[in-house]
Amino acid sequence: MVNEQGFDLAVVGATGAVGQQMLKTLADKEFPIRSLKLLSSSRSAGKEIEFKGETLTVEEASPEQFEGVQIALFSAGGSISKKLAPEAVKRGAVVIDNTSAYRLDNQVPLVVPEVNEDALYNHQGIIANPNCSTIQMVVALEPIKKAYGLKKVIVSTYQAVSGAGLDAVDEMYEQSQQILNEEEINPQLLPVSGDKKHYQIAFNAVPQIDVFQENGYTFEEMKMINETKKILDDQALQVAATCVRLPVETGHSESVYVETEKGGATVKDLQGVLEAGAGITLQDHPETQTYPLATTSVGLPDVFVGRVRQDLDTENGYHLWVVSDNLLKGAAYNSVQIAESLVKLGLIKQ
Amino acid sequence: MVNEQGFDLAVVGATGAVGQQMLKTLADKEFPIRSLKLLSSSRSAGKEIEFKGETLTVEEASPEQFEGVQIALFSAGGSISKKLAPEAVKRGAVVIDNTSAYRLDNQVPLVVPEVNEDALYNHQGIIANPNCSTIQMVVALEPIKKAYGLKKVIVSTYQAVSGAGLDAVDEMYEQSQQILNEEEINPQLLPVSGDKKHYQIAFNAVPQIDVFQENGYTFEEMKMINETKKILDDQALQVAATCVRLPVETGHSESVYVETEKGGATVKDLQGVLEAGAGITLQDHPETQTYPLATTSVGLPDVFVGRVRQDLDTENGYHLWVVSDNLLKGAAYNSVQIAESLVKLGLIKQ
Repeated sequence: MVNEQGFDLAVVGATGAVGQQMLKTLADKEFPIRSLKLLSSSRSAGKEIEFKGETLTVEEASPEQFEGVQIALFSAGGSISKKLAPEAVKRGAVVIDNTSAYRLDNQVPLVVPEVNEDALYNHQGIIANPNCSTIQMVVALEPIKKAYGLKKVIVSTYQAVSGAGLDAVDEMYEQSQQILNEEEINPQLLPVSGDKKHYQIAFNAVPQIDVFQENGYTFEEMKMINETKKILDDQALQVAATCVRLPVETGHSESVYVETEKGGATVKDLQGVLEAGAGITLQDHPETQTYPLATTSVGLPDVFVGRVRQDLDTENGYHLWVVSDNLLKGAAYNSVQIAESLVKLGLIKQ
Repeated sequence: MVNEQGFDLAVVGATGAVGQQMLKTLADKEFPIRSLKLLSSSRSAGKEIEFKGETLTVEEASPEQFEGVQIALFSAGGSISKKLAPEAVKRGAVVIDNTSAYRLDNQVPLVVPEVNEDALYNHQGIIANPNCSTIQMVVALEPIKKAYGLKKVIVSTYQAVSGAGLDAVDEMYEQSQQILNEEEINPQLLPVSGDKKHYQIAFNAVPQIDVFQENGYTFEEMKMINETKKILDDQALQVAATCVRLPVETGHSESVYVETEKGGATVKDLQGVLEAGAGITLQDHPETQTYPLATTSVGLPDVFVGRVRQDLDTENGYHLWVVSDNLLKGAAYNSVQIAESLVKLGLIKQ
């Protein structure tokens, strides 16, 4: 597609769960687009995708495809980002990468615009979009940090299968139907497609997301720990994570325990600070059973926070329930927000 | 049913999810039964239930029904326990009550035999069986406490719908099928049958189990907090809980953070202590993706522990994943274990 005004964009991984939400978000936000290339692995090349009434054909990603591209949104897996992001940068593009390939690279800003937009000033071509479960947590933590300081965070996650891709969603629904039919199931993909064993996800809770590391934590848990420290720019912040996959299509939930530096904040204080926080919608009325739910977060860009409670033993300890659409704020929406921030800060010009 | 040897038993709430597991456990464990009465509310009276090849008819529970009963297992809701447990005691029965009616009563021992069997010596007729999510956690905590002392516990739960009864299981499966059929759903029961609002449980995670208290915690969360302190006999122990209902039929999972009194224990030390713990099966081999799962816990009396990790910031901090069949060790099995302990300790005689 070609318009007279706007930016020259490429979306790499356009046919995936996140890629589709990137296109939807670009359209919904009316991001100014002069030209748009949809790129993918050879497997998906040739597929047709509709965007704002036009039918676009997905092409195989190659270094040359990035000639003339100003902003390249990558979400096609870490190995493609490692291979092609430098090629895109070499040709003048700014890469916003949704994989884990560059997130902990000191040269690469890891950005959630509500939290650390200023980090974009230091970019050297590649900007990393954090892990889905990290993004929604740091959005909730940032206003608490500003008001009271942060000392310790312990999170247990309740993560949706769409974070593992569209095939994982299909596996969950197919398996659910088989169980309802009292048929045999044959897990092939979850919890981790490339790993040795696969387990039932339907009507189950699986405490493994991504592969295990030497220290007994999963890679997803280490992502949450390391990325949170980097985004909040505080290597001394104590962060622990246990990441669990659930039979939920979309919408990650998190049970978060926070210890603040300063004590004395009441639940009301904390609710006020969260309500005023950028990107947050507070849903917290126990008396009317109002709290965030995965199912009611789907399709919305907000981070929903509720169940705010004071710890009963630790004066500066609090508990939160944090929910967001993992494909939107957790991925596609945050990536497009980064593109908007680049434009707003004058870091990319038409 | 009438045998020559054994004890005179009554099961109150015999038609419920827990009641059925009580009968199965009594049969599996070959508990010595001379006579067995199956009692229930008037709604379920007249139903027929098979026990060890005999067909028994459920009768309406009334004070007179407890004449001649030595052990009465109650699991028919708190109001029935409040009304009828004292009547049973008055007639000479020892009541093992699976509801929350008496759990925090100072006169009533709250017992998990692996942890505090000795508390049975002080019983005055009623013994309380703890909340399902509490039992499995204290079984895992007890050997850690013995070896290293306990300072702080923070738990986030992943609880199965059978904890809310057989109707809740039906609602989950029916709703799942409706969603797979792309039909409208009409939640009537979960998260809490008597509460004002009802939410989708299928393909969702609902952060409410039981009703909300004044302090913003749910009653389930306060049960975990208060019962854990009582069973471990340590009112100074710091306990926090966030309780979440999942679309899982049976098997509660828990993400547990523990701070011990003594530092210096390695993950290997902790695994050794857990493996030797009564009632625990350690399932903890990240290299072969071996960890406890709700689906593989069903029908087994063990508490399964895995994902043992050292906290990366707090030297005496550890993370565990604790899973058990909520109807067995979480309810029926523990109740029958209490009956066995009463016999073993000579507190009930044939």
